[in-house]
Amino acid sequence: MIQFAINKAYFLQALHTTRRAISSKNAIPILSTIKIEVTSDGIYLTGSNGQISIENSISVSEENAGLLITQPGSILLEANFFINVVSSLPDVTLTFEEIEQYQVLLKSGKSEITLKGKDVEQYPRIQEVDSLTPLLMDTKVLKSIIAETSFAASTQESRPILTGVHFVLSNHKDLKAVATDSHRMSQRQLVLEHSADNFDVVIPSRSLKELSAVFSDDIENLEVFFSANQILFRSETISFYTRLLEGNYPDTNRLLSDSFETEVVFETASLRSAMERSYLISNASQSGTVKLEIINGSVSAHVNSPEVGKVNEDIDVQDVSGSDLVISFNPTYLIDALKALKSETVRVRFISPVRPFTLTPADDSENFIQLITPVRTN
Amino acid sequence: MIQFAINKAYFLQALHTTRRAISSKNAIPILSTIKIEVTSDGIYLTGSNGQISIENSISVSEENAGLLITQPGSILLEANFFINVVSSLPDVTLTFEEIEQYQVLLKSGKSEITLKGKDVEQYPRIQEVDSLTPLLMDTKVLKSIIAETSFAASTQESRPILTGVHFVLSNHKDLKAVATDSHRMSQRQLVLEHSADNFDVVIPSRSLKELSAVFSDDIENLEVFFSANQILFRSETISFYTRLLEGNYPDTNRLLSDSFETEVVFETASLRSAMERSYLISNASQSGTVKLEIINGSVSAHVNSPEVGKVNEDIDVQDVSGSDLVISFNPTYLIDALKALKSETVRVRFISPVRPFTLTPADDSENFIQLITPVRTN
Repeated sequence: MIQFAINKAYFLQALHTTRRAISSKNAIPILSTIKIEVTSDGIYLTGSNGQISIENSISVSEENAGLLITQPGSILLEANFFINVVSSLPDVTLTFEEIEQYQVLLKSGKSEITLKGKDVEQYPRIQEVDSLTPLLMDTKVLKSIIAETSFAASTQESRPILTGVHFVLSNHKDLKAVATDSHRMSQRQLVLEHSADNFDVVIPSRSLKELSAVFSDDIENLEVFFSANQILFRSETISFYTRLLEGNYPDTNRLLSDSFETEVVFETASLRSAMERSYLISNASQSGTVKLEIINGSVSAHVNSPEVGKVNEDIDVQDVSGSDLVISFNPTYLIDALKALKSETVRVRFISPVRPFTLTPADDSENFIQLITPVRTN
Repeated sequence: MIQFAINKAYFLQALHTTRRAISSKNAIPILSTIKIEVTSDGIYLTGSNGQISIENSISVSEENAGLLITQPGSILLEANFFINVVSSLPDVTLTFEEIEQYQVLLKSGKSEITLKGKDVEQYPRIQEVDSLTPLLMDTKVLKSIIAETSFAASTQESRPILTGVHFVLSNHKDLKAVATDSHRMSQRQLVLEHSADNFDVVIPSRSLKELSAVFSDDIENLEVFFSANQILFRSETISFYTRLLEGNYPDTNRLLSDSFETEVVFETASLRSAMERSYLISNASQSGTVKLEIINGSVSAHVNSPEVGKVNEDIDVQDVSGSDLVISFNPTYLIDALKALKSETVRVRFISPVRPFTLTPADDSENFIQLITPVRTN
C-alpha cells in the first residue's frame, strides 16, 4: 500500500515528460494509464503507446523533489486524468496514499481527492535492451541530426520503411543519417568523437520527434543501447525506448551524382520567402508547382493558377554559373529543405529539368545534402 | 481601375480587423470575400457574415498609412487568400493596381502577384442605420459589461432569444444588461454619464464577443446607433453592425429575491480553484454535480463519481451566517460566474436547496448580481 509525499511541481514535470509516450486514444486501453512504481530508492513512472515507451525516475536523493517514501508499492492510474488532478492541487506538496487496494488518496492543503486505479499486473512489459557497450552521443548533436533529416521521412504507411530515418555507423565512427519519402531526401554525415560498434537501424521519424521533445537541452549526453528490434536512449533520469522499423532501407547513395550543369547560390531567407509566396498561389491549383527560370544569370520564380492568380518574382542571387535551365517543382519541398538549413546561404545544383537537384549549405557541401525531385510539366 | 500604394503593416492591421466579420465557411459564398472600395478620401474595407458586418476606413490623411491613391474603384477579393498574400509580400510598401477588370496586380519589392477578384455589384448591401442622436459609451465600460454578462447567454438555438444579452436603458440613464440560459443568469446595472434615448434591445452574445475583440482599448469612446433590427457601434475608423434578436426577452426580475436564509463570503480565487478540482471529478460522471455543505459555520465541497473517484474539500471562508444548508449544483456554472467577478471576495446567498442562489461582489451587492440554479439530488 503505497505512501509517499512529494513536491508537486517536481512531480508534475516528471509526469508531463512520461505522458509524451501516452496516447489517450490508444486501441489498447491499458496504455492510457501511467505506471507508478514506488521503491525505497525512488519513484519510477512509465508511459507507453506500444511504439515508444518512456521511463522516468525520481530519486529520494534528489533534493528538489522533496520525496519522502513511507511505503513502496505500484499502481496504474489513468494518465491524463491523474495529471490534471495533480496539477489542480492547492498546496506545494502532496501526499499520495493507497487507502484500499487500487484506490489512492491525494492530500494537499485542505483538499482530499480519491482516485481509482488498476493492478500493475495488467501493464505490458517493456522488452529489455541489453547491449554491453552503449554509444555515447551529445544530446544537441543528436537533436540537430533529427531536425535536419526526420521531416523528409514519409508520413504514408504504404511503404512503412520510408517513415523512418536510416542511421548507419561505419568504420566505428562515421555516422550517416538519411530520410526520404521518394520525392525528396535529406542526409547528414558526421564523425563521432568516440568510436563505437557499427550499426544499421531505421528509427521511426515520429519517435525521433518525441525524443527531441523529451530530452531537454540541459541534458548533455545520452547513452544509446541497441537490440534487435528496439533502441534505448538514456539520460540520468529518463529512459526512452522506441521500436525499430524492420526491412531493408533503399540505397540512397545511387540518387546522388557528382556532376551538375547549373549552380546557383541563394540567400536562404530570401529564397524561402519567395517560395512561401509561390506556395500560396500554387497551393490553390491541382498541379501545385512553381517554375524556376535560370536565364542569363538571373533567376525568377513563376506560378500560374488560372482560377486564382499568378506570381512573377525576381530572386536575388549571390552567384550563378553553368547552363540556363527551366525547372518545375513543388515549392513545399523547397520550403521544408530551407527550414532545415542553418546556413545563411544555400548552394543549389541542377543537372537537368527532369533530374533531382541538390541543396547544400554554401559553406559546407560535404556533410549535409538534400535532394528534391522536379515535376515534369508540358 | 483601382490604383494605390500603401504601407503593408498598416493595411494588414485594417484587413485583420475586417476579417473578424468574415467566416470562410459561409453558406453564401460571396460573404467569404472582402469588399475594397477606393475613393479619393481613402479606402473602405467591408466584411460580413450576414449577422455582423465590419466597415473599416483608411484615410489619406492618416500619416502612418502611407496611402497614395492614384485611381478610385472597387473590387471583391477572397478574404483569407488576399490577406495571406499581402502578409507574405517582401517590402514595407505595396502597390495595388487593377490591370484588367476584376484582376489585381500587387507589387512589393521584386514580387509581382496577380489575383482574380469579383464585381462589387455581387456584394449584399448593409442596411443603413439612421438614428439621429447616438448613445456615447466608454469602450472599456462596454467591454466589461460584455465580459460580465455574455458568457451566461445560451449557446443553444432552441430558444434563440436566450442567445442574446438584453440591454435596457430606462430613465434616460439607467442601463441594465442581463443574460440567462435558464440555468444561470448574470446582470450588470450602471448609471450612464450622459443621458440618452431609452432603448430595449437583445444583442446576440456572439456579436458582442466579436465587438470586444474588434475595438481595442486605445479607442476611448464608441457611438451607438439603433434601428429596428440592427445596431451600429462606431469609432473613428471602424463601424461594427450587428443584427438584433427579435422577440420578447423573458422577465428576469422575478428570479431575484431579496430574502435569503444563508450567506457565505468566500475568497474568489480559493472558491474557484476548489470548484475546478470538483469539476475534474464531477465531469467524469453523468450527473456532474458538486455538493456544498454549510454546517456549523464550516463549508465543504464533495463530489462522488463512483467510477473515477471522490473529492472532499474544506473551503476557507471569510464569513458564514444563517441556517445550515446542503445544496448541489453544476460546478461549471460557479466557475464561470467566479471568472466574471473582478472582486477578491464574493458573497453567496442561499434560500433553500431547491431555489437559485446569488453571487455578488462582496464589496458591492447592488450593481452586479449572478444567479445559479441548483440541481435536485436524492
